[in-house]
Amino acid sequence: MDGLLDVKKQIKTYVETIADQKSIELLDLLPSGKMLRSKLILKIAGISDESIKLCAVVEMIHAASLLHDDVIDDATTRRGQQTINSIFDNKTSIMFGDILYSKAFTELTKMPQNIAYTISNAVTLLSVGELIDVELSKTFNTSYDKYLDMIYKKTASLIEASAKSAAIMSSKNSDNFSIYGRNLGLAFQMIDDILDITEDSAKLGKPSMLDFVEGKVTIPYLLLWDRINDGDKLILQSLYKKALTHDELEWIKSKMNETSVVMDSIKMARKYGLEAIEAIKDEQNEELVLIMTSMIERDF
Amino acid sequence: MDGLLDVKKQIKTYVETIADQKSIELLDLLPSGKMLRSKLILKIAGISDESIKLCAVVEMIHAASLLHDDVIDDATTRRGQQTINSIFDNKTSIMFGDILYSKAFTELTKMPQNIAYTISNAVTLLSVGELIDVELSKTFNTSYDKYLDMIYKKTASLIEASAKSAAIMSSKNSDNFSIYGRNLGLAFQMIDDILDITEDSAKLGKPSMLDFVEGKVTIPYLLLWDRINDGDKLILQSLYKKALTHDELEWIKSKMNETSVVMDSIKMARKYGLEAIEAIKDEQNEELVLIMTSMIERDF
Repeated sequence: MDGLLDVKKQIKTYVETIADQKSIELLDLLPSGKMLRSKLILKIAGISDESIKLCAVVEMIHAASLLHDDVIDDATTRRGQQTINSIFDNKTSIMFGDILYSKAFTELTKMPQNIAYTISNAVTLLSVGELIDVELSKTFNTSYDKYLDMIYKKTASLIEASAKSAAIMSSKNSDNFSIYGRNLGLAFQMIDDILDITEDSAKLGKPSMLDFVEGKVTIPYLLLWDRINDGDKLILQSLYKKALTHDELEWIKSKMNETSVVMDSIKMARKYGLEAIEAIKDEQNEELVLIMTSMIERDF
Repeated sequence: MDGLLDVKKQIKTYVETIADQKSIELLDLLPSGKMLRSKLILKIAGISDESIKLCAVVEMIHAASLLHDDVIDDATTRRGQQTINSIFDNKTSIMFGDILYSKAFTELTKMPQNIAYTISNAVTLLSVGELIDVELSKTFNTSYDKYLDMIYKKTASLIEASAKSAAIMSSKNSDNFSIYGRNLGLAFQMIDDILDITEDSAKLGKPSMLDFVEGKVTIPYLLLWDRINDGDKLILQSLYKKALTHDELEWIKSKMNETSVVMDSIKMARKYGLEAIEAIKDEQNEELVLIMTSMIERDF
């Protein structure tokens, strides 16, 4: 897509103005993601200096949150690439995250006040979402509401804020685009949680079925919990936060097959996806519908 | 001082609006510092709703930077109190830092644009300063310029930005107050570095002479390096980043006495202090002069 290269250049320019050689070096080591948030912004607001700068700010915030996330999760790889905390150390990852966050906020202060507010408020939600994620990962969470609140804050809030800000920037209906962004974010996180189970390690760029080992009771596990008998519940609980053997992994997979929880998780993600599409039905933005459908109508 | 209690209340109000129980709980566990930055702001801009909010934002940013600093330094105590990372874990400290940072930035977006820019830009400098500190702590740094650049960014930049923002807010000469804040910040950090050597553990609330063990070659050590012979240089280098025995500590202290480096470090801090006072000589703000003189004319 046109524009994404400009976003990368803008990020580089921003980091270069910090005039810290180490930061420039670290930026080059960050894995390049799908830039979902930038795609949304550019498809809502079009390509302009202003929208490219907004994209750069949002991508820097996203990258900063991942840098801190990788420290929190002790992650050694992301998208198949070595993480900054594994190449260097946690210190470097924390501080480079802070540099990207604060530079993004600094550039935000030059943008319209309601956009600056919308984006920075989303970062608070995102950080609270991370903290809730840490809390929920301590003991087996069986509450769907807590899961939904957490993924809204951790993942959907910044996507929602990106769509809303792009709408504000281009004088479009910001309420509708907020709803689009929020629901797309929820669907996106649910699909990510499903892929942890259905995709192999090579494709994921990390071990598959790692979420449960890390204490994350995601949507397929929540549905599974509701559908198994008390004996199986005890077994599932005994496997929580454990390095799983082949047999234990197979047991979870067979129980998931019996109870169709993966298919039903996909259906839930699709429901949010369709709500996203519904919210912008009057906006005549075929490309945004396409982003959503390609996300939910994929192979699992 | 009047106003500081209002600042604490304002911080609490800000954190409460995040509506996350854990964050409210964590806020109560933060040690209450001297609130130097708030004192400066209130003495420059006077006490008003606006200045109290600016103080709250700056204190939240300062607290966030300390939360990340404690993770980076593996600190278990700060001002004699247990740190969040030691009570809970690094994850909690990182995420609560991010929450305080982003909430502060969110509230900044409601303030005048030049204040929002000044403060958030200082946070980038501060974070770069932390990263440089990490880099400089890897190998024995003997460059005074690198030390000065690091302490300007890490410590002085936010104090400079606080004084400048308070001056902007109250339509005073922001250039003069910037110079005051910058020099006060440099003097403050040098004095902190000197106290690490001259004060005992009880007063510091952490082991004394810890900086050198942690790889920090502060101003007294830089001066010492310049003044000892090659044989002693080798000894000093061999003690770098080591848990020191009583005899080794005494060796460093005796060399410091022989070379008068503590007294000369105090003189350097005083020089910055006097430059700070000189910068605001036309402002008729006796209290700001007093903050500076009480800082530099103390017992070491």
